[in-house]
Amino acid sequence: MFLSSCLSENSEGHLTIGGVDVPALAREYGTPLYIMDEDAIRSTCREYRKAMLRHYGKNFLVAFASKAFCTKYMYKILAEENMGADVVSGGELYTALKAGFPMNRVYFHGNNKTDDEIKLALSSGVGRFVADNTEELSRLNEIAAAEGCVADISFRIKPGVEAHTHEFIKTGQIDSKFGVALINDEAFDFAKTALGLKNIRLVGVHCHIGSQIFDIDPFVHAADLMIDFISRVKSELGYEIAELNLGGGFGIRYTEKDDPKQIDEIVKSFTSAVLKKVSENNIKPPFLVIEPGRSIVAPYGITVYTVGSVKHIKNIRTYVSIDGGMTDNPRYALYQSEYTAVLPERINEPATETVTIAGRCCESGDLIGKDMKIPPVKPNDLIAVLSTGAYNYSMASNYNRIPRPPVVTVSGGKSRLIVRRESYEDLIRNDI
Amino acid sequence: MFLSSCLSENSEGHLTIGGVDVPALAREYGTPLYIMDEDAIRSTCREYRKAMLRHYGKNFLVAFASKAFCTKYMYKILAEENMGADVVSGGELYTALKAGFPMNRVYFHGNNKTDDEIKLALSSGVGRFVADNTEELSRLNEIAAAEGCVADISFRIKPGVEAHTHEFIKTGQIDSKFGVALINDEAFDFAKTALGLKNIRLVGVHCHIGSQIFDIDPFVHAADLMIDFISRVKSELGYEIAELNLGGGFGIRYTEKDDPKQIDEIVKSFTSAVLKKVSENNIKPPFLVIEPGRSIVAPYGITVYTVGSVKHIKNIRTYVSIDGGMTDNPRYALYQSEYTAVLPERINEPATETVTIAGRCCESGDLIGKDMKIPPVKPNDLIAVLSTGAYNYSMASNYNRIPRPPVVTVSGGKSRLIVRRESYEDLIRNDI
Repeated sequence: MFLSSCLSENSEGHLTIGGVDVPALAREYGTPLYIMDEDAIRSTCREYRKAMLRHYGKNFLVAFASKAFCTKYMYKILAEENMGADVVSGGELYTALKAGFPMNRVYFHGNNKTDDEIKLALSSGVGRFVADNTEELSRLNEIAAAEGCVADISFRIKPGVEAHTHEFIKTGQIDSKFGVALINDEAFDFAKTALGLKNIRLVGVHCHIGSQIFDIDPFVHAADLMIDFISRVKSELGYEIAELNLGGGFGIRYTEKDDPKQIDEIVKSFTSAVLKKVSENNIKPPFLVIEPGRSIVAPYGITVYTVGSVKHIKNIRTYVSIDGGMTDNPRYALYQSEYTAVLPERINEPATETVTIAGRCCESGDLIGKDMKIPPVKPNDLIAVLSTGAYNYSMASNYNRIPRPPVVTVSGGKSRLIVRRESYEDLIRNDI
Repeated sequence: MFLSSCLSENSEGHLTIGGVDVPALAREYGTPLYIMDEDAIRSTCREYRKAMLRHYGKNFLVAFASKAFCTKYMYKILAEENMGADVVSGGELYTALKAGFPMNRVYFHGNNKTDDEIKLALSSGVGRFVADNTEELSRLNEIAAAEGCVADISFRIKPGVEAHTHEFIKTGQIDSKFGVALINDEAFDFAKTALGLKNIRLVGVHCHIGSQIFDIDPFVHAADLMIDFISRVKSELGYEIAELNLGGGFGIRYTEKDDPKQIDEIVKSFTSAVLKKVSENNIKPPFLVIEPGRSIVAPYGITVYTVGSVKHIKNIRTYVSIDGGMTDNPRYALYQSEYTAVLPERINEPATETVTIAGRCCESGDLIGKDMKIPPVKPNDLIAVLSTGAYNYSMASNYNRIPRPPVVTVSGGKSRLIVRRESYEDLIRNDI
């Protein structure tokens, strides 16, 4: 019945997350409120690591894609769970650093790293630079030379694999701002260039074919192409690239229509493809890195809102206005993403109404979703939007000068505030 | 040649804004950088006020729509220019308050005001509540009663006028989360209810038909419908509504294809429609409020970026990566909005290249625009995106933990920092 394993109901007919009563959390911390199930996040980290160990052996790293949910506390969880972290900016790197995250397990991605960020990454001992292009590579080499060190790099390859997903989050194809293409020898030329630079050590190759993907075939296909590339570099340049990073993009359930594969099944598919292919190509199994983000946090987060007005527009639509919206969850406005909403105080009532859940911003496009099925609602009811653990807090804005909600985790039946609610004072802190 | 009157070139072939050299500002404050021409903003405020005075007399208020650009310094400008302000949240209200803005000139809008916001607005002496619906109205009445005061209200009417613009920013139609409809007697019933409440004084009616509108007819049509409504309330309920608020939505130039009318012409059109209609209906000319936002700031702001990499993908596309993107300007990602880009250091070079300007976020949809015409660029060049004075800083996020850029104004040939650049420390301030 429940979209995510972390959700259930208690004897009062309330929604629970990680066994904790959601209406009680809303009372304690106020709304809007992000709630994340820490135990479920930890167990998903373990599930990925166990599956990798089972199907590939010890030679791997599961790095969390920080952009999905980046806070100091998240890095503490990741550190304890022996996870790596993929960061894409100085800000994410800084957050990991301040959380005491082991920087050698950090992969620094991004299509446009600034010089200052590269310096910060070098000085903090970041594990791997995932170089995007030759211009960045030569800047990285120069900066590393100036700092008297050698930068361990991987680099991003566009394998040319099309994943079936929203255009905005499809990134493995050639027409992308990210990386260098396999075709036209772009990637090969990059490797040749990298091998000639004194302050660069070429360690790995990386690809990322998109986001919220349900089909395993594109991952397998990408793995095949990447290993062929490693083989070509070995045979033509006499250098064996030791690391393969297949990125992330594994889909999750936003609505009941979504049917993602089990983590073990996904991992088994691409690891067996990798093992088969390296054996065929007679190269060593590379150190294998994967970078799931959404699938580790999205299903285990919910957002709780309070209903303001309910507007029945005859023969047209019912608008349910909530005390949040595109400022805390811009994914409908950006991608027309679908979500599931429930009433935490009356979880067993049948979803007989079709409503549009609207945010409080002064903007018509500020919706959580159109034509969502929920039970009848009235002002002051709570609404929970499910699967908001990824790309909600991390994408939140202060549009309309609306403060960002706090984030609370639950673990072992107890709650903990991990990000404080923004105050009005926070909003004007940098105003002069 | 220049998209906005505030832009020009100097003897070095550099772009200037308000007469100030843009590359010099970029050097001084770093990039990405928002720059606004304060003198042009002030003169646009005066242009609106003069046009209202010329065509309608003294009985008016021009209230700036804060959501377009909300900072303490902006409220100082508005206060000095005898403008009002339209706010849509406690955060905007608080910013106005802290800037010392005269609160009696504040209109408090929004489809879902919280009780705390209503209390803050009452205690700070906000001029007008623009009530959205009857549920909110009764809450407002109760809170005003508890505080022992009377709330002066206007209320939002959906006149049913369709403006030709993007679906997300079209708000005058019946299928909208905002306000009450003219049809089905919703608005009439609202007025009747409001007149029966002890702690509510019904002062005005408000409509807002959309954003970035170029056609004057919808404004004129909306004005006609609103005055007919005022007349109906007068004849059937014996109460003359004294104030008419026609909202904003006046279009501006984002590209050379955009051809907005002059402010004087727009104001003349709808004020003469109002005056004609009130004379026909034999009612007093109402106190007339308009709420331009975008047209006061958008043309007079630019964003300056530094180019990172330039990626020519053979037969497909050239990607120019900049050090900002959807975090400081999400309007392409949200609405596929078109912008104009120029090279501030070589303003006279012909725009011979067709490029896609991509941001630095780890997201394919992070673009400023596709197929933009600019001169040839190389890494470290500056790029200025024009007409970013509205809905850029105000919609900015920290996605990928990217700090928000600072805002600098220029006036009388001098620059002034009005919003500091966010620091990494700011990003983790609320993290526990």
